[in-house]
Amino acid sequence: MPEIILSINAGSSSVKISVYKTPSDDSKVPTQLAEAVVEGLTAPPAKLKYTRGDEKVKGRELENISSQEDAFRYILDHLTNDKGLSELNHKNDIKFTCHRVVHGGDYSRSQVIDKKTYHQIEDLSDLAPLHNAPALSIVRAVADILPHAKNVAYFDSAYHSTLPDYICTYPINQEVAKKNGLRKYGFHGISYSFIVHAVSTHLNKPVNELNIIALHLGSGASACCINNGKSLDTSMGLTPLAGLPGATRSGSIDPSLMFHFTHTAGKPSRSSTEKMNITQAEEILNKNSGWKSLTGTTDFGKISSSDRDEDQLAFNIFADRISNYTAPYFTKLDGKVDALVFAGGIGEKGGKLRDAVVKGVKCLGFELDAAKNGKDVEDVVTDISADGAKYKTLVVQTDEQLEMARNVLEDRDRFVGKT
Amino acid sequence: MPEIILSINAGSSSVKISVYKTPSDDSKVPTQLAEAVVEGLTAPPAKLKYTRGDEKVKGRELENISSQEDAFRYILDHLTNDKGLSELNHKNDIKFTCHRVVHGGDYSRSQVIDKKTYHQIEDLSDLAPLHNAPALSIVRAVADILPHAKNVAYFDSAYHSTLPDYICTYPINQEVAKKNGLRKYGFHGISYSFIVHAVSTHLNKPVNELNIIALHLGSGASACCINNGKSLDTSMGLTPLAGLPGATRSGSIDPSLMFHFTHTAGKPSRSSTEKMNITQAEEILNKNSGWKSLTGTTDFGKISSSDRDEDQLAFNIFADRISNYTAPYFTKLDGKVDALVFAGGIGEKGGKLRDAVVKGVKCLGFELDAAKNGKDVEDVVTDISADGAKYKTLVVQTDEQLEMARNVLEDRDRFVGKT
Repeated sequence: MPEIILSINAGSSSVKISVYKTPSDDSKVPTQLAEAVVEGLTAPPAKLKYTRGDEKVKGRELENISSQEDAFRYILDHLTNDKGLSELNHKNDIKFTCHRVVHGGDYSRSQVIDKKTYHQIEDLSDLAPLHNAPALSIVRAVADILPHAKNVAYFDSAYHSTLPDYICTYPINQEVAKKNGLRKYGFHGISYSFIVHAVSTHLNKPVNELNIIALHLGSGASACCINNGKSLDTSMGLTPLAGLPGATRSGSIDPSLMFHFTHTAGKPSRSSTEKMNITQAEEILNKNSGWKSLTGTTDFGKISSSDRDEDQLAFNIFADRISNYTAPYFTKLDGKVDALVFAGGIGEKGGKLRDAVVKGVKCLGFELDAAKNGKDVEDVVTDISADGAKYKTLVVQTDEQLEMARNVLEDRDRFVGKT
Repeated sequence: MPEIILSINAGSSSVKISVYKTPSDDSKVPTQLAEAVVEGLTAPPAKLKYTRGDEKVKGRELENISSQEDAFRYILDHLTNDKGLSELNHKNDIKFTCHRVVHGGDYSRSQVIDKKTYHQIEDLSDLAPLHNAPALSIVRAVADILPHAKNVAYFDSAYHSTLPDYICTYPINQEVAKKNGLRKYGFHGISYSFIVHAVSTHLNKPVNELNIIALHLGSGASACCINNGKSLDTSMGLTPLAGLPGATRSGSIDPSLMFHFTHTAGKPSRSSTEKMNITQAEEILNKNSGWKSLTGTTDFGKISSSDRDEDQLAFNIFADRISNYTAPYFTKLDGKVDALVFAGGIGEKGGKLRDAVVKGVKCLGFELDAAKNGKDVEDVVTDISADGAKYKTLVVQTDEQLEMARNVLEDRDRFVGKT
């Protein structure tokens, strides 16, 4: 009998849940039944977006929904009450929940959440409290709400557990580094894992022979150098702050900058709580920098199509910083590159940015077909390379929810065997 | 009549002074007469090294010399008392002094030091107190000691005044950025200026047509992308801390790292004074990180020839981080590259590192001749490329002192015209 999997992706102001059923055959590909998003948690009223087949709800305003846990409970009720979703009538029908957790410390793969692992995840979240908090608030509640389900944490950092020591070590006091877990971890790993599988299928080449320069470009953005299917380098670091700039994130800056930005850089921010210590510097660099600080908007689509000086500056900064990763990843792969891949909201929709990025590495042998690049992508993988380009450029519609659900099928025995 | 120029290069524990005379012809090339170095200011007794033709003093221990100003006064006495240095018998024989100042803020060229410029230089040193302090202590004294000389400040940042806005802007609050002068400045510019002139002569190609990927690798290390003779990008940032790691510097790290390294990151360090505010984070990242923190030594020669795990890790980290700049600088020059240039102490002597770096960018068309790379360099410019390599690789013996003295000849009218 098909089993129900919920894939949960909690952000700082939204919760997205996709509902899958397991296949009745051996395909290991789950089928999506519905998707629900509650947005605007930090700008009430929160709103529901719901899709099940042709059934669509959009922009329904919700009362008294202000936390990730609220949103989770609301969506769960909505799903079990949806008569059209016959596979999920009762909470007990849910066999697995998948939680996207940003920072997984030294975990190299997903973990069934029990008391012990919950506390471990809570502890390691000290490194990235801003990023793990949204998921943790749902993880905390889920054992109560869904006691019959296997609850599994998927970590954005786990895919990068293959980084070599010379990439992931910071040249700082190693005693403190080891004690405090200070190294490059990397993030967006669930997305990179999806990308690798999708490109492997598209190119009909085994995962473990695949070399990719992958760019996950959304409101958070990162790059990954994938060698034989594994992460060899990535732009984010100890936290998602390092590397590329984003909607509200600075990306890499001079490490001494913040001490010249404010004299209170190291003091707790106003959003710090007893459980969550965030410095003013971290809050400013994560929440009040990036496009927003340059242009006033977090919408990169608007920035791309504007001719205001500040928008063009933001656009050029982003394109330039991306080239600071694509080019060295090309040399780290010794020029043996199966594809340059664009993914994430901006990667999928930003034809102008893709054009600028690829023009920047033209001398390496990348070139776009203007017509293909100008169209909206429809497939999971779309080839936008020019005819005769030495290297392929692809757009991948990445799907972290599906990647987690698919992994449930692959790792089912490990999860179910665990008590 | 020939005039005497002193080129002064003050570091955190040393002062180096080269003595030049102006040419009697129009060659604009000054002749070096002598060179004096006082080392070990932070590990007394300080020691003198002195060279004039075949006359050599080495390791003479000095009493009561513990500051940069002490060292400057001592060297001045030594020079005027050296009977063999007939061109310089009295302080009044010195027509120009050149001071290497690390951080020059918005200055795009050298400045004659008067009361006004002195205070401007002092003010902008807030951005890099650790780096400007050694020079400032001599600059402060020189008007008293050498009232007849024109004293000129040369800034390591000035060469990078050509950085485009999309390179030098950090994606942070622009109001604060503008108010506090928070942008990428870049450093090692006196060296890059020397390199450009030397390579221009070597390749017989005009400076303004020269495209170079230049690596200044010493205890402080940086990379520079030189387009048509001008700086297009560079690895250091607001301060010399950003970019490549060095002997005691971390280079770029996750901007949030230090808040997880120590809870007192933003508090004043022990070496802060009323005049100089340095946070603990800045002190740790500038003084107690880099090779020293990984291996226990600041001597990259030792690290290169060792087979201890920690030394090999440090070596591999350095080679890897260098490739993170060489590759994008190649694409920023659209593959139109006249040479990859190694300079600085490690760049000149580190054959093994050069080999690792060039192997890392082999797929771009760089290749070394093993025999040429294995020899000590003797000339100002040495070509170490393999026969048939698509692109040249050069070693340049950079000389910041000479570059400053040469500039005195070029800009003489500007300096002397100034009151």
